[in-house]
Amino acid sequence: MTKEKEQLFSVGIDLGGTKIAAGLCRFGVIEKKVVKPTEPGKGAEEVINTMAAAVSEAISGIPREKILGIGVGAAGQIEPRTGTVLYAPNLNWSNVPLAERLQSLLSLRVKVTNDVRAATIAEFNYGAGKGLSDFVNIFLGTGIGSGFVINGKIVEGVTNSAGEIGHTCLDPNGPLCGCGKKGCFEAFSSGRGIENYVKSMLIYQHPSEITGLIKGDLNLVTGKVIGEAARKGDQLALFALERAGTYLGLVVANLHTMLNPQRIILGGGVMSLKEFILPAMLKAVHHHILPLSKREEIFALAMCENDAGILGSAALF
Amino acid sequence: MTKEKEQLFSVGIDLGGTKIAAGLCRFGVIEKKVVKPTEPGKGAEEVINTMAAAVSEAISGIPREKILGIGVGAAGQIEPRTGTVLYAPNLNWSNVPLAERLQSLLSLRVKVTNDVRAATIAEFNYGAGKGLSDFVNIFLGTGIGSGFVINGKIVEGVTNSAGEIGHTCLDPNGPLCGCGKKGCFEAFSSGRGIENYVKSMLIYQHPSEITGLIKGDLNLVTGKVIGEAARKGDQLALFALERAGTYLGLVVANLHTMLNPQRIILGGGVMSLKEFILPAMLKAVHHHILPLSKREEIFALAMCENDAGILGSAALF
Repeated sequence: MTKEKEQLFSVGIDLGGTKIAAGLCRFGVIEKKVVKPTEPGKGAEEVINTMAAAVSEAISGIPREKILGIGVGAAGQIEPRTGTVLYAPNLNWSNVPLAERLQSLLSLRVKVTNDVRAATIAEFNYGAGKGLSDFVNIFLGTGIGSGFVINGKIVEGVTNSAGEIGHTCLDPNGPLCGCGKKGCFEAFSSGRGIENYVKSMLIYQHPSEITGLIKGDLNLVTGKVIGEAARKGDQLALFALERAGTYLGLVVANLHTMLNPQRIILGGGVMSLKEFILPAMLKAVHHHILPLSKREEIFALAMCENDAGILGSAALF
Repeated sequence: MTKEKEQLFSVGIDLGGTKIAAGLCRFGVIEKKVVKPTEPGKGAEEVINTMAAAVSEAISGIPREKILGIGVGAAGQIEPRTGTVLYAPNLNWSNVPLAERLQSLLSLRVKVTNDVRAATIAEFNYGAGKGLSDFVNIFLGTGIGSGFVINGKIVEGVTNSAGEIGHTCLDPNGPLCGCGKKGCFEAFSSGRGIENYVKSMLIYQHPSEITGLIKGDLNLVTGKVIGEAARKGDQLALFALERAGTYLGLVVANLHTMLNPQRIILGGGVMSLKEFILPAMLKAVHHHILPLSKREEIFALAMCENDAGILGSAALF
């Protein structure tokens, strides 16, 4: 590596529905991070202006010619060649030419990718997938997404939508998913899926500590509350998390049987309750996996976590 | 392509439990085919001798230096570097150093691969996957196997066992599979799975034409008999095939959601009853697929079929 190359930077932006985090990166290290509220209600133009302001702040003092480009990871469906956000429900965006707009504001090259794919690139380059050629990165947040690396390359799919593992059907008679289908993986094991299960059991008057914690307001059932109840030994909370882990284990086992990857990486907010989820997951993996495949090192936890969006987006350059 | 290259051949062997088919191949065309009975009861040495005899016959008259090598596709678990058959239940083989033995008998280079992977290579080079970079080839025979091509390359997996899609679990409470697990895709949609379902319904005295066709002997329930009954409008036969198609559709939809390939190719003996299976499959695909992904060209039928094992094995050279 030449001395010149060592002095080059790239910027990664994690564009979420709540906050915009821009990071000045070099070799997988965030050297400066700027966070601003997204405020999607103000409209796409305003959000893009805020992104540009965050980047300007992050790169202040760095000569433009030392910046390779700006990568953006956004929750939504992206057209990768043009960097247009085709659909991003949490921003309320449709067909926003994000790369073009940001490029004209900042006079720097811009690439846009999906947020989970950015997180997968981060794990691939700097995290739990470093040095691997074949792995799956499952991100369990409000919803569930994933990224596949096979034969050393990110799998994009023919219409760039590879990775929608949250919407694979695990039970045709299962609970309704936000996508309109029934029994999706996401309906069982995502943050929202776990919350919905707890709420539905409370409707049935299932005895639970949670009833007291939420003072009768079902809207207050959150992952945090469920975790709190689980730590107190509440049976409903424990079962909801065990159930999520059991379905996660089914998916992990099936991925392993089908693609025989080196590792399956688990990340996202739901993993903050891993103490309650992983035992059930492991039990299900061992139940569903082919006998010859029983191996200890099937899964690993994500390592880049909160910075994955920035690091992976920056790695687009 | 030089004139010399044009005159080079390779040999593909389809090693099954019933017959050995060896083909002299050039550019995806079988120029001469020799078929001999496998007779696995005589032991591995004898089977390998028969393979060598079939090859000698197929290549007679061709100078050795014009033969690039011999590829073998075998139903079983293969160690790809050494060409050892680790486990092949239908041959009753464990740890047979097939490549080494055949190489010493014939003085030609030998490579061994799994039979379904050979069929996938054949479709990739000469069949329904020609010109594609991303597809899945599902082979529905007595059991179910598959091959994945992603980013233009066959997916082998870390222990060379990628493709065991037949043993992904579709229903933890489903019927027992030959592998000892419950509710595997193979237990629903393979030839044996369909037969077992029909047999189990006959045990329950389900009214059916099949009862007459088999004269009370459940061992006579075969795919052929089920097909015959279905053509006569028998409700049990029709439902058994519809059920197999419904589970196939679930798998096709989930593969599409997860990997977004260009195509999913369906082959194998079960597809000879496609008139009864595909309508249910398509209905399930449209039911389970993400709304944005609805596309007509999701699946295609395999094209190489009976010659896939030979053509794909030969293409190893």
